[in-house]
Amino acid sequence: MNVFIIGVGLIGGSFARDIKRTQPNVRIFGVDANPNHLEEALSLSIIDEKADYSLLPQADLVIVCIPVDVMVRELPLILDAVNDEAVVMDAGSTKSLICKTLVNHDKRRNFLACHPIAGTEFSGPSAAIEGLYKGKTNIICEIEKTAFKLQERALDLFQQLGMRIRYMNPEAHDKHIAYVSHLSHISSFMLGKTVIDKERNERDIFDMAGSGFESTVRLAKSSPAMWTPIFKQNKENVIETLGEYIGNLETFKQMLEADDYEGIYDEMNNTNKIKGILNGIPLNK
Amino acid sequence: MNVFIIGVGLIGGSFARDIKRTQPNVRIFGVDANPNHLEEALSLSIIDEKADYSLLPQADLVIVCIPVDVMVRELPLILDAVNDEAVVMDAGSTKSLICKTLVNHDKRRNFLACHPIAGTEFSGPSAAIEGLYKGKTNIICEIEKTAFKLQERALDLFQQLGMRIRYMNPEAHDKHIAYVSHLSHISSFMLGKTVIDKERNERDIFDMAGSGFESTVRLAKSSPAMWTPIFKQNKENVIETLGEYIGNLETFKQMLEADDYEGIYDEMNNTNKIKGILNGIPLNK
Repeated sequence: MNVFIIGVGLIGGSFARDIKRTQPNVRIFGVDANPNHLEEALSLSIIDEKADYSLLPQADLVIVCIPVDVMVRELPLILDAVNDEAVVMDAGSTKSLICKTLVNHDKRRNFLACHPIAGTEFSGPSAAIEGLYKGKTNIICEIEKTAFKLQERALDLFQQLGMRIRYMNPEAHDKHIAYVSHLSHISSFMLGKTVIDKERNERDIFDMAGSGFESTVRLAKSSPAMWTPIFKQNKENVIETLGEYIGNLETFKQMLEADDYEGIYDEMNNTNKIKGILNGIPLNK
Repeated sequence: MNVFIIGVGLIGGSFARDIKRTQPNVRIFGVDANPNHLEEALSLSIIDEKADYSLLPQADLVIVCIPVDVMVRELPLILDAVNDEAVVMDAGSTKSLICKTLVNHDKRRNFLACHPIAGTEFSGPSAAIEGLYKGKTNIICEIEKTAFKLQERALDLFQQLGMRIRYMNPEAHDKHIAYVSHLSHISSFMLGKTVIDKERNERDIFDMAGSGFESTVRLAKSSPAMWTPIFKQNKENVIETLGEYIGNLETFKQMLEADDYEGIYDEMNNTNKIKGILNGIPLNK
């Protein structure tokens, strides 16, 4: 089986590592706009061969793991180039625009819209790790638009990687993911900014910050090149969640200003139930 | 050496475990308003003996690890009860009101104001862990007000526990800690609230949330009984940091509404430097 990984960073590289481990007769071709990343992926044995789109007709499976703005530009070209039996899947954090872009493509049946909910705050080929997808959820959109035989091939792979599958329409995906992923990133980035702006003397932060702060700002290490187009494509949902978050923070601040400590206690106590909700989340680290 | 732990939860219990491990000739007395916690601490061998204030005259070292509102009420009584050679230290997350409360106490020289920057989101005796303080920062306020011999005894202990010491005045402590600790907790609690409020069907959160969300809302599992009085005592600083955080989130939202993706990229890119700042933070998990 010839597998093409378009974008050999954290997400694509981790797919490559797991596919190599679980499927012995596989040849992994890497494609990347950054020649250094491609070289690095080769030297780390993440890919077997450097490639470009001219080799795509040989592909049985193509996994596209690039920023979502580049995704909507490149996916039609990738589908143009593959053969009729190939399955092309993406790993984008947004789904509506990607699905809309391909709705009338001649090879729509060759495409499977995916969002594997997995990752770390790091990026590039060196961030790729084995087992990243084990126990993680893969959200698949518009499954009915993919050819049945190709669905099967993709689902077999996800099963071998240990992923749990959930089906959802692209609009529901983008709405829910704004709350549980996109908002977390903004909250974390702005927390990091607030503290950096105030504490010019970084030594003070370093000395006083504990693991709680580190946990809360971890996502502020994420790649702006990856996240700017996500926020752009999911603008309406993100603005809505952000508005609600700001409203809740304002209410908390007003309770503090009004010395309403009973209200503050209740707010925190009610939110403690996140414990039970989180207990089921498969964690990476 | 007789060590009294007042409040045998995560913080006090972890002190007890480490002191027992590093100092063989020690007897640990536990005091707690919650008889179940005291019983649990005894059965977990965190303490050697249940005690109350009537035994305090036997104490060589007293570590007070209780919510900061109870702290300002109890610390004067504890100091009243100890002998002239005892050192009493606290582990409160605020320092100004505690230091002000004791400024004219007859035994002010027996008191050392501390804030060990360590912990997890869990609480109670069962949350106590060995080595919690290793490599962590302990902020000491108004060191000059503590008797020299007693300073020495406390610093020896911190050294054996592997802690790094930083000296700071109580006002500077409360101002800085609002940014790197108190704000993180509010940010996390309100993020948890926003998502819970929106996503009534918890199954959807569970399925779509990844390790990023878990990391960002981890602190929303923290104890409201512990945190409400912290926010109350540090009200002015917390309101200031919260105002700045809300302002930054508002700016981000406005940039999104104005399609200013270059601005959004720059904000995230500038905040990425948190990586370098965080690299030095000793982590728990």
